[in-house]
Amino acid sequence: MKPYPIPQRIAIDLERVETALSGILNAYPGQLREPAGYTVEAGGKRLRPVLTLIAGQAGIYDYDKLEPVALSTELLHTATLVHDDVLDEAGLRRGRETVNARWGEKTAVATGNMLLTEAFTALCDKSEPFVMKGMTDCAALLSEGELMQQRALRHTALSIEEYNRRVCYKTAALFAACCEFGARVSGAGMADIKALKQYGECLGMAFQVFDDILDVTADEAKLGKPVGGDIRDGTVTLPVIYALARKHSQRLKEIIQTAGPLDDETVNEAIEIIKDSGGVDQARAEARDYLDRAFLGIENISKKALKVELTAIGEFVIDRYN
Amino acid sequence: MKPYPIPQRIAIDLERVETALSGILNAYPGQLREPAGYTVEAGGKRLRPVLTLIAGQAGIYDYDKLEPVALSTELLHTATLVHDDVLDEAGLRRGRETVNARWGEKTAVATGNMLLTEAFTALCDKSEPFVMKGMTDCAALLSEGELMQQRALRHTALSIEEYNRRVCYKTAALFAACCEFGARVSGAGMADIKALKQYGECLGMAFQVFDDILDVTADEAKLGKPVGGDIRDGTVTLPVIYALARKHSQRLKEIIQTAGPLDDETVNEAIEIIKDSGGVDQARAEARDYLDRAFLGIENISKKALKVELTAIGEFVIDRYN
Repeated sequence: MKPYPIPQRIAIDLERVETALSGILNAYPGQLREPAGYTVEAGGKRLRPVLTLIAGQAGIYDYDKLEPVALSTELLHTATLVHDDVLDEAGLRRGRETVNARWGEKTAVATGNMLLTEAFTALCDKSEPFVMKGMTDCAALLSEGELMQQRALRHTALSIEEYNRRVCYKTAALFAACCEFGARVSGAGMADIKALKQYGECLGMAFQVFDDILDVTADEAKLGKPVGGDIRDGTVTLPVIYALARKHSQRLKEIIQTAGPLDDETVNEAIEIIKDSGGVDQARAEARDYLDRAFLGIENISKKALKVELTAIGEFVIDRYN
Repeated sequence: MKPYPIPQRIAIDLERVETALSGILNAYPGQLREPAGYTVEAGGKRLRPVLTLIAGQAGIYDYDKLEPVALSTELLHTATLVHDDVLDEAGLRRGRETVNARWGEKTAVATGNMLLTEAFTALCDKSEPFVMKGMTDCAALLSEGELMQQRALRHTALSIEEYNRRVCYKTAALFAACCEFGARVSGAGMADIKALKQYGECLGMAFQVFDDILDVTADEAKLGKPVGGDIRDGTVTLPVIYALARKHSQRLKEIIQTAGPLDDETVNEAIEIIKDSGGVDQARAEARDYLDRAFLGIENISKKALKVELTAIGEFVIDRYN
């Protein structure tokens, strides 16, 4: 796997974010401590805090102002993962048991609610009102995006527009918020804030499209969970939309529309159809296109060093398993 | 059923709360509108907004300051109900299908998350920071209380202290917040704020104990859901704790500890044992005791008219199905 291209200064402050996260969740009073602490220990790239901290260099970098934003975005993201795993009845995440697999779905729903609540608590004392408003907006979009996804299961006529809106709600809006709020709390200028917001949104789109590609192309060891999860669930992703648009896609359509559980052989059959159709390559081009738009957004940003760092993050995101 | 003793002034402003709630949820963009609107249409007593508005008379009554608190408390409460129904796999609530029964559990989890988020959104623009902090604290306690309940299922050795803590987290903390914050945003004096907080907390305890009694004693038509729900789930409530402490409670213990689904006959058998044991009467005395402590709290409150109104609400709460 490629090294994670975080500048030294950001890496040091990311450690502080990590400590603060751990402080919130591992020190949580009561029975939620164990599952909550477990979610934070699972680690992950902490991409949202990283984006927040990097964007925080656009004005006058002040860790104390950035920390609440970084915590809030990561907690909101983690809450979503925990609830998504309940809804998907997922057993593995990042190579470890999910909260629902380990403690049951009831504990997982309570843990997700607690993490969602903590995402707002993190902002209560030390943050400006626009951050709170922006984070509640993001949380609402995430719920809506989750519902859109559930309602569109096995819906083989899903349009690219519908897919894009879902990805915007589920992923890109929060990426945009990290970049925008990081810049705003650092007192960056209006043009830079706008540029970073656009970067974040396009990066989020690229990230999710690439994630959807990984579900088809990765191997389980690297992915930390079984491949073909989206196919099993009936979630129609961009590579699938492209594959379905080709001739001779009848068999894929049948598989995606199958209501019951799919056996491994059928999932692998679907994966082969998607790969053979060119759907993966087309989706990869689309992810690249989003990334180029992300880079275009920050083309004229005031601090050139920032552009270099954000470009490195972008290239990593779209190619993170090579 | 007894008439709901709300003063005219409060009833008028409760209509405004109702309109605002409906405005938030029925006007919600996207696919969450339907289930979200449905939850608010289901109505209910709106006890939390009522308490907020009544407590708001402790200082200088200002509806505009009280509305965000009233909305937030009701949204948080509704979020909890929607998630609880998912976890309990409940089919009926207030005589209507639950969100999970109507749209499936995935939609219900997303709807609950959206309602939880809206509880904080309602406070973003128009409220003081202590309200936001207080509401996130309440939400965290609610999650913890839910988890405590789930972990204690079929746990026949549950102590009264553990039961009380759970009830405090799940119900009384939010009642206390309604009364405290209603008073604080109206600029009431310190002593009155403290008095109202104590009233709210004790009222919440009384309310929940009485609710737990109703699960044993009410009939389905009045309750709007099947009786004996707690027994079916294995939730150990105060009447059950008292009944289990009596001699000859072996059969009740067996029933509560039964892991599989219980048939109606067995549930009714448990109900009869609980009633015969005197557990219901003892719990009723405990609820009365909490109510008396609630009234004691507001004994010396500055505005005597407020005391009369809060007493009427208290008497209604503990006797609301007669």
